[in-house]
Formats: sequence, structure tokens, C-alpha cells
Amino acid sequence: MTTIVLLGFGNVNFHLINALNSVNEITVIQIYNRNNIVLSSELNHIPFTTDLSEIKDADLYIIAIPDDSIAAFSEILPLKNKLVVHTSGSVSMDALSERNRKGVFYPLQTFSKNREVNFNNIPICVEATEATDLKLLMNLGISLSEKVVEVNSEERSKLHLAAVFVNNFVNHLYAIGDDILSNNNLSFDLLHPLIEETASKIKTLAPSQVQTGPARRGDQKTIEKHLHLLKEGPKSDLYQQLTKSITKKHQS
Amino acid sequence: MTTIVLLGFGNVNFHLINALNSVNEITVIQIYNRNNIVLSSELNHIPFTTDLSEIKDADLYIIAIPDDSIAAFSEILPLKNKLVVHTSGSVSMDALSERNRKGVFYPLQTFSKNREVNFNNIPICVEATEATDLKLLMNLGISLSEKVVEVNSEERSKLHLAAVFVNNFVNHLYAIGDDILSNNNLSFDLLHPLIEETASKIKTLAPSQVQTGPARRGDQKTIEKHLHLLKEGPKSDLYQQLTKSITKKHQS
Repeated sequence: MTTIVLLGFGNVNFHLINALNSVNEITVIQIYNRNNIVLSSELNHIPFTTDLSEIKDADLYIIAIPDDSIAAFSEILPLKNKLVVHTSGSVSMDALSERNRKGVFYPLQTFSKNREVNFNNIPICVEATEATDLKLLMNLGISLSEKVVEVNSEERSKLHLAAVFVNNFVNHLYAIGDDILSNNNLSFDLLHPLIEETASKIKTLAPSQVQTGPARRGDQKTIEKHLHLLKEGPKSDLYQQLTKSITKKHQS
Repeated sequence: MTTIVLLGFGNVNFHLINALNSVNEITVIQIYNRNNIVLSSELNHIPFTTDLSEIKDADLYIIAIPDDSIAAFSEILPLKNKLVVHTSGSVSMDALSERNRKGVFYPLQTFSKNREVNFNNIPICVEATEATDLKLLMNLGISLSEKVVEVNSEERSKLHLAAVFVNNFVNHLYAIGDDILSNNNLSFDLLHPLIEETASKIKTLAPSQVQTGPARRGDQKTIEKHLHLLKEGPKSDLYQQLTKSITKKHQS
């Protein structure tokens, strides 16, 4: 039996606790959060505290709080020589306090409170300084997901950077698509099948191999038509930069 | 029974013919292409020609060739007062020759030869000058897809512009993610679940409402870390432009 205390209760731990709760060999024995929280009926048997001095003894402490706060928070934890991990893509393991054994448990997914999450296919990236701790995190990962990989802090920072491109930046391009259509009284729904196919295609074909569009073809006439439609502004700047980047990638 | 001649045999007509062939009330009576083509066994009963002078009499002619060539090709077609449509997102209906009745049949999807396509959920945007022609195109659309909409050339150009953002540009961001990972010996597979969730989320939530990431949070520390990892170059330029665009969108 592995006992776990969750520290913080944002989107990551909110989804993580539901997944952990369904694994037999794991018990979440406590949740700490700075402010009070409301737990669902399946989870409200789990002890909760807002007081760091009340934190219980456990095999593993999972910090899931904003990136900026991880280092300072790990310093004020009243624990010693315990396994304390964070769940962040961009924060180095070394940001954690030296007073405890360090580790990382990073589920590579985007979490929203109002979207269900199936951990089964979420890659979980683990890291630890001690071999036994790494094993514990590996096993924890395997109990939740089919894809658990050991990734060091440097690799994880690259993964997180790539994730910003394919998630945050892609979502912004979806928002621009939405803007263009709603400004013309067209429904964004019309683009859903295209968005889905674009995202699905790259599971079997490398994205650079399936690049299409005016920039890829060097179709200046269409590019100019599009810039004319966009007028000057951030969308036009972005269109030009993306066109330039595609052209550069595919001429070399 | 509606009889159709397909003009050109690129990705669009390649997929279109398979869909049309399964509809009872439609017969593709001929395929024209500049060069010889190889048809699958299910389709090789359909007459084929490379000679424009041999083009048969039909209810509808569907031109699916590169955008730049549509206008000139429609001029050299030896037809008069026939319904001739193109399938392009970015070309105006008026680009077609005045000698025939004009229309557009634009399936809003990305087509690759080696990917199967289900027309059922592809939005089909139709346009025509004559009411009876519009009705024919509508009915043709309905026989293939659940989503058929009348869209004029100006609206279609906006749709196509939005499609460039959510398909061509998004695919380029996937390629950058792939680059970052492969340069660090990490598998692009790790990003598939994230890509899928990002694309899926916006079917129920507006993309601007689910925007996350360092740019959205104004997390300068992470942004600088990422720019340091990227070094100077097209990826860094793009990162900065996208960050600027997200910041601008969400401050206003």
C-alpha cells in the first residue's frame, strides 16, 4: 500500500485524485490546500486540511500548485527526508527543497475542471534522485497509465516547450479561426471536422510530410489575398510569420 | 439520376469519386485528366479521357485542379450553358467562364491520397447563380454529407482563411513540436494525447475560453526560459509572435 498526501488542489490534483482513488494499492490519506475546497461525495471521506502543521506521514507527497510557487512552498513544508514530487512540466526537479527526497510526476496533458480525463493514455514522465523513489513513481505511473517514461529535467523542459507549441499555440490558432468565422456570422462548427482530421493525421504521418497550404505551395496570390482579408494587425503579423516559417522549413 | 463528369483527378476528386460512386441516384459518367491515371478495380468501369474534345454531356461538371488553373481551364472547356463547378475554398465562383452556369461545391476538409475520408461529417459549402443549380448541388451534398450549407464566395474566402489557420498553420506547429522532440531523442508520440485533447476540447468549449499556458498567464519567467531553449531563429520568432498575439487578445 502506497500512502499519498496531495498538496494543492488545482486542475492537476483534482483529476489525479479521481484516478488515484480507483487504484487498490494506493490511498490518498490527506489533501492539503491553502483555501477550503469542496470534494465530491466519492472523495469527501478523505481528510482535508488548510494547516501545514497538520500534514500526515505518507510515502509520497505530490505538490500541484502554480509553477512559480513550487520552490518556496517546498521550503516551508514541515517534512524531512520524505519523497516530495511536483507535477510541473517546466520546473526543474532541483527547484524542490533539499530537505526532502526529490522527484517529478508529470502527466503530459492539459486539464480543465469541466472535462473528464482518462489517465490511461496520458504519458506520465517521472524523475527522482533515488532509485527506490524512481521505482515507486514508475509503479504509481503504471497503475494509472499505459505510458510511463523516465525523463530528466532537461528533457522535460523540451517536452514542455513542445507542448506549448502543440497545445497553447495551437489553441490560439483555433481561437483566431473562431474569430474570423464569428466576425462573418459563420459557425465555428464548420471547422471541427478539419481540426479533428488535422490532429488525427499526424498519428500516422509525420507533420512535416503532410504540410499543405498556400505557404507550402509558395502560392503568393492566395497569400496576398489572405493578407488583404486580414488587414493589418496581430492576425496579419502572425499569418506572415507562420508563412515565413513554413517557407523556410520546406526550402531547406 | 444525376450524371457527373469529373475534371481533374487530384486528392479532392480521388476521394469524391469514391463517395459519389456509393450513391444510387448519381452516376459519374466520365473522368477527364490531363495525364493518364490508374483507377481502382471498383472504379475502372468509368470511362476516362485525356482529350477535352471527348467530354460527354452531363448534368454537372466538377473541376478539381490547382486553384491557379481553374479560371483558364474553365475557359478552354468545350461546353456551353452547362453547370460547371469548382471545389476550391479560395477561388471565387466568378473565376469560372461565363460560357457556362457557375457553381461551387467545396468540401471543407483536408484530403491526402493515403488517408480514408468519411464524407458523412464533412461540411459541404455550395454556391450557384441559378436557383435550380443550387438545388442540384444541395441535393448532391445531402447525398454525401449531413452538413451542407449555402456559402457565397466572400464567406467562403473567410472560411478558407480560417481553415489555413486551424489546419496548415496548426500542422506547422505540430511539425515544430516534432522537431523539438526529435532533436532531443524524445518520441513525438508523447504529444499525441495532448494534441487530441486540445483538438477535442474546442468542440464543446470556445477556444478563447480554454486558452492556457505561459503567454495567457503572463508568466515571463517561463517565456524567457523557452526563448533561451529555442535560441534565435524562426522557432523563436514564431514563439514571440504567438505569445504577443495571445497577450494582446486576452488583455483587451
